[in-house]
Amino acid sequence: MSKFAEPMARLIDELKKLPGVGSKSAQCSVCNNITDVDPCVYCASATRNLRVVCVVEEPTNIAALEKGHNYNGAYHVLHGTLSPIHGVGPEHLRIANLMKRAESGSVDEVILATNPTVEGEATAVYLARQLKPTGVRVTRIATGIPAGSDIEYADEVTLQRALEGRREM
Amino acid sequence: MSKFAEPMARLIDELKKLPGVGSKSAQCSVCNNITDVDPCVYCASATRNLRVVCVVEEPTNIAALEKGHNYNGAYHVLHGTLSPIHGVGPEHLRIANLMKRAESGSVDEVILATNPTVEGEATAVYLARQLKPTGVRVTRIATGIPAGSDIEYADEVTLQRALEGRREM
Repeated sequence: MSKFAEPMARLIDELKKLPGVGSKSAQCSVCNNITDVDPCVYCASATRNLRVVCVVEEPTNIAALEKGHNYNGAYHVLHGTLSPIHGVGPEHLRIANLMKRAESGSVDEVILATNPTVEGEATAVYLARQLKPTGVRVTRIATGIPAGSDIEYADEVTLQRALEGRREM
Repeated sequence: MSKFAEPMARLIDELKKLPGVGSKSAQCSVCNNITDVDPCVYCASATRNLRVVCVVEEPTNIAALEKGHNYNGAYHVLHGTLSPIHGVGPEHLRIANLMKRAESGSVDEVILATNPTVEGEATAVYLARQLKPTGVRVTRIATGIPAGSDIEYADEVTLQRALEGRREM
């Protein structure tokens, strides 16, 4: 028995007292968010616009988007990104219930908020192709210079994307 | 006389040997870029699309945009940003020759590439208002999540801008 076993067990017991941690943790059947209630607080909200669905890679991304109180729609968690190099294909991601929502007519727009990484972009392109035939509006969050930053500090790819993504004023 | 006077004078002499430094340094009359020839290499280029003008705050921003070889138009350097708190008004920026270019019919699009800071945004909004009546297309570079980054690391304002700036896929 490791000398850390006892302290670790105590730590785990303490962690279990935190909301959303412990044996009750499960995925929301609608959006795959990790939650102790199903549907989750976002899917069950009476004040959010559930006809807009923001697709994220991981449940922790939801916290990032909620931080700013700028987004008031629903979510969908993929639990990963496509990564052929690591053998991760569409069958390893939670896509089926997203497609079902899009096909059901209950969704107007799907915002693809996967990260602007190689895997995140590939996943967004894949999902856009799958979703388009359902007729929902499919959008992608903007890649560009971060707010408050300087174009001097931006890498070449970000600058290119900021130029390509320029908008009418 | 300071004990640094002699070494400093030698340093200045050495620096003067570098291209673009020394008594010949001057501003390009068309775009205000710092250059030893007028018009500058960008304004005099036969291979660039001079009907697109990218407006930047400082001459050093041009180097950042050229780094990626993504942009192939002309430039305009403001030499600053509007900053009422520091007493910097439009009269302190190099705007007159930009307006002249826009009014001359030789420009199709002005890309406002001031930084996504409070001052940079205010300057972009001011310039857009001035330029619109000339009929040129006025665009703004995208603010958003930097390429290769994670939405977890984005601040609230950047995430808000990334959502607002989302594009159809």
